Parts: sequence; C-alpha cells; structure tokens
Amino acid sequence: MKLATLKYIGRNGRPTRDGKLVVVDRTLSRYIEVPEICGTMQEALDDWEATAPGLESVYHRLNAGEETEHAPFDATNCMAPLPRCYQWIDGSAYVNHVELVRKARGADMPESYWHDPLMYQGGSDHLIGPHAPVEIISEDYGIDFEAEVAVITDDVPMHVSLEQAPRHIKLLCLVNDVSLRNLIPAELAKGFGFFHSKPASAFSPVAITPDELGPHWNGNKVHLPLVTTYNEVEFGRPNAGIDMTFNFAQLISHAAKTRHLGAGTIIGSGTVSNKDASVGSSCLAEKRMLEIIANGKTETGFMKFGDHIRIEMPGPDGEPLFGAISQFVIEHAICQEEVRYTSAFE
Amino acid sequence: MKLATLKYIGRNGRPTRDGKLVVVDRTLSRYIEVPEICGTMQEALDDWEATAPGLESVYHRLNAGEETEHAPFDATNCMAPLPRCYQWIDGSAYVNHVELVRKARGADMPESYWHDPLMYQGGSDHLIGPHAPVEIISEDYGIDFEAEVAVITDDVPMHVSLEQAPRHIKLLCLVNDVSLRNLIPAELAKGFGFFHSKPASAFSPVAITPDELGPHWNGNKVHLPLVTTYNEVEFGRPNAGIDMTFNFAQLISHAAKTRHLGAGTIIGSGTVSNKDASVGSSCLAEKRMLEIIANGKTETGFMKFGDHIRIEMPGPDGEPLFGAISQFVIEHAICQEEVRYTSAFE
Repeated sequence: MKLATLKYIGRNGRPTRDGKLVVVDRTLSRYIEVPEICGTMQEALDDWEATAPGLESVYHRLNAGEETEHAPFDATNCMAPLPRCYQWIDGSAYVNHVELVRKARGADMPESYWHDPLMYQGGSDHLIGPHAPVEIISEDYGIDFEAEVAVITDDVPMHVSLEQAPRHIKLLCLVNDVSLRNLIPAELAKGFGFFHSKPASAFSPVAITPDELGPHWNGNKVHLPLVTTYNEVEFGRPNAGIDMTFNFAQLISHAAKTRHLGAGTIIGSGTVSNKDASVGSSCLAEKRMLEIIANGKTETGFMKFGDHIRIEMPGPDGEPLFGAISQFVIEHAICQEEVRYTSAFE
Repeated sequence: MKLATLKYIGRNGRPTRDGKLVVVDRTLSRYIEVPEICGTMQEALDDWEATAPGLESVYHRLNAGEETEHAPFDATNCMAPLPRCYQWIDGSAYVNHVELVRKARGADMPESYWHDPLMYQGGSDHLIGPHAPVEIISEDYGIDFEAEVAVITDDVPMHVSLEQAPRHIKLLCLVNDVSLRNLIPAELAKGFGFFHSKPASAFSPVAITPDELGPHWNGNKVHLPLVTTYNEVEFGRPNAGIDMTFNFAQLISHAAKTRHLGAGTIIGSGTVSNKDASVGSSCLAEKRMLEIIANGKTETGFMKFGDHIRIEMPGPDGEPLFGAISQFVIEHAICQEEVRYTSAFE
C-alpha cells in the first residue's frame, strides 16, 4: 500500500505539526482520509499490527474503485511521511561511494569498511516534505543533494538478528539527505560526527510497503534505478540494488547492536552509487571525485540558490513509485526581529 | 513550576508510549493531573505559550493547598519527562573534562575547543525514566554514567542569536548519559561520531522551569552542585555553574547554526566537571584519567551488572530539586524467540 501525510489545519486554525495520514492509490492519483483508523503516520506505526490491516483494506478498495469518498492526490500538499520522527539514522551502504571519495583525496579505505557499516544519528525534528525548499544560509557551505532509499521500522529489539530484522521493515521511501560539504571536514575532524553539515532532509510524497515493489524487493534491497535530475538534466540513475554492500537487514541489525529502536525509526541507505560510472551519480560530491580521479581537478560546483533537484524511482511501467522529491534551493533569510517559527507547512 | 510524565495505561489496556503529563508540587510530594490543559509533555511544549499559563496556575494552587484532587507523587512511577523526543543533542560544555581526557592519553587539546563547542546528535527514540534499569549486553563494553544538566526548548529558529537564545529555554532536567567507553575509540575513529557507544539516556523525575532555581539560574548556567552517588558512596559534587565554558544560550545558538530546532529539543551540558578535583567527578572515565595523570595507571574500573548510580541536585534547603535518577545496571537478556518490544514501562 501507499501512504502519505498531508498538510492539515488543526481545530485551533493553525497547521498541525504531524499532518494527516491518508491512503493513496497505486497510481498516485487519488487519496482517501482514514480518521477511523488513525490520524497520523506515527500513530499508524506505533500500533502497526492493529492499524495496517485496516489501511490495506482501504487501499485495495481505493484501487478497485470501491471507495467513493476519495479526492485528487496532489504531491505539493504533502509533508514528509513522518514530518518529525524519533529517530533518523543514515547508513553508508554503498561502499563504492566511500572508496571513491577517499581515492580522490589519495587516502586508502580501511578494509573494515567492507564489513562494518558506517552510520550516523541524524536530526529528526524536522523532516521536510517533497516540495519544501532547501533553506540554507550561505552558498559557501557547499550545498549538495544525496539521493537515497530508506526503510521505516516498527519497534526493533536490541541486538536483533539478521534473520529477524527484515520483519521490522514496514515502509520504504526516498530521501534527499542534504549535505553542506564545506562544513564536513572541520566537523568530522572534531570527532563527534555530522551536525551543522546535515540540515533537514526531504522525503518522497509517499511511503510504500515492500510488497509494492514485487520482485524488485529482493534480498532486502530495492532493485530499481534511482533517478536524480539536477536543473532539469538527468544527473544519475544508479540501480539501488547494485553495489549495495550492506542490505537493509544488515543496517537494522547494526543500528540495534546496543539499543532498542523505537517505532517509526527511519534508516537510510546512504548515497546510492554504482561502480559503473556510466549511470551517473546521486550527489555532486561523487561526480567531483570522479572528475578529480580522471582529470586531477573538478569542474562541477556545488548547488546555488535557485537550483532545482528532483529525485524519483520509476517502476517497471515508468511511473514514479514514490512520487518525486522536487526542491529548489533558497537562501534562508535571517530575521532581525525573531518571529515564531512553525514547521508545519514545509 | 515542576512537571513530570507518569506511566499511563491507555484505553486499549496497554502502556502508552508518551505517558501522562502531571504537575508536581515544589516539594515533590503531590501531583495533579491536567487533562483539561494537555495530555503529554510534548503537547505542552508544542504549544507552550498556550499551555504554560494554565499549568503554572495549577502549580501555584497545588503549592498553596488550594487543589483538592492531588495524589501522592512517587518517582518510581515516572517515565522520562519526554519518554521519546524529536531531538536530543549533547554538548561538551565543561572543556576541563575534555582536556583531562586528552591529557591522560598524552594528547594536546586544540585551542579551538575553547570557543567552538563539541556537540553530537543523540538517539532520542527511547529516553528512559529515573528508575529504569541501564540495560546493557556486556560488561566488556565499559559501562559508564555521565551526570549532566539539560535544557528543553520550544521552537528555535535557524541561526538564533545569543541574545534571543535564552528565551527558548522552557524547562531544565538532569540526565544520566550512559556511555559505553570501550566502544568509543573504534567508533570515533570511523569519523561518524557516537552511535553504539551511546545507548538510552535516563532523565530526572521532574523537569522544572528556570525560575524554580531563583538566583542559582544565572548567566544561562545552573549554579548548584550536581551530586553523583555510586554504589551508595558519594562520587562527586561539582558545581554545574563553575568551569562551564559554554552556557546554555551558547549551546542553543551553536546547535541552531544551520537549522531550526523543533519544540521539545533537549540539549545536554555534557559531563559536569570542575577544575577543583577535590569535588570529585561526574563519570568514571574522568576519575580514571585523574588516576592516570597522578599515578600513571588507573585503579577504578567501569560499572558492573548490579551497580547502582544516583544523580541529583540538592537545592539550598538540601532537597533534590529535580528528584533523583536512581538506576541499577542490568544484563540485557537476548531472546532467541523475538518478543514484541514495548518501551512504555521503562
């Protein structure tokens, strides 16, 4: 099934922070509200065994044309499937990407990187919608996109086994993990990981259950191309199932090594990357590294205010399975007079 | 005022994940439910301007003996003030502590550490209650406590100024930021920061507004001793207002450099530490470092299963302002048959 979170005005006349959960049909043309089942995506995930059957039932009736109360689906009205969540963890499962980055700066990659996943704790208080602007203070930060696939879990017990991990994957979605490249070296040198260099990430209009992928969900990987279009030119279409060193079961098991993971935990794949360079890349940094390796210098710059980034995953019929992330980069205006900040309509 | 989150059984007969918000009197002897104002701590913080006046009013009536519906307050029935939250950030504001750790291993500390705060993104999906066990798989991980003070904010806009930051501090609480010392070196060497080495943190029974501290809240610091008792012996009582290189306004401003912070963001001070070693320490690691500097070797080990840790901050009258964190360390039992994990009654 396919689920989305729509912008929603609460009874107090203000946008709600968590929006409203809706069921979307397979073609992303219609949606239906489900207040009798649950109000928000987090509520659905908090009690998935109880809520999922009802949501699935609505989904099948909607696809069969048996629901009459539906409305036209408009992705510009979407928040992130979880507009804020309790845990966003990003892995770095495409080790080819990591090796390229290191090669470009003349550094060998430790052999351990092939069997011990890189993973960091991301900020999860603002997960922005597919059409929200990428709001950055300065172009000097080195603004980059990163196209990724992510899974959303239910409650995962500490030390979950590789065999048990897959059953905790409830939904999948796409992510644009915005990165501020010029802030990364100094930040990582301090040893405490990413912080300023990882502002709010954006998510696809819908989250979908693994069964929607049919045979393309195999071995806990998504075997389909992830297409990135940068300023209206195709930038990359690596297959997310190729060269993924750690599958999602491995990423979940790794994340849960010393702790339980709460329902609604989102785990990202890291930037999707194939060894076959002819398919292009999923971030500017990788393209720059390939240029350095090939020519000793980089020709590609980072993003500028006004740039446009689009990320989608076409299914076998060519239609985007998750809808599209479609964002412009804008300059954050710093107000002298501080105004109350509300996140809801991003 | 003083607020707590109590364990609460939902209408479906199961523990709720977010508990029930209550107002606690100044002496931590009585509480009162406030369903007419809001149900959970997160709801209160999401709309603080609207909820706080009503909560304050109940608090003053409770202290004045004008509320008749109160019940006895029992800290063992407390969850963390926010049993899960959207953002938990930990700073390292007592740079003395950082310098000691580095000195013990013969490393100089970069001068930049005195003006650029260290800060990491922590896991916020499970914040455990003051009496929840510290549940760890192996003693070999090097189990340690870290006694800290933390603030809880409302919505903070990106790039907030030092002047504006203090107005976003709505509540304060105490934290035991459990650390797995033997996992840290390898984890930090990978460059992506803490992950496995930082399992669930525990929080004090109540969160309090800054005005409860009277003159001891000054310069965006808490000028009171933080007392740690380890296996029933006093371990340290450094003053949280002394040697705090970065105050909470600076930590908030630093955290918001490239992004908005959502309501309910918790920002920790890092391990409280004074240069005056006679007051003791707030974690085992620091004591070990002092031993190495003094004697070339360490005598203190890390925590064992069955150990007890107590963290509290006595007010001027000797009574603990936030109640006490009081936890035993237990071995996590790995189930062969996976059972549904529920976090609520921790």
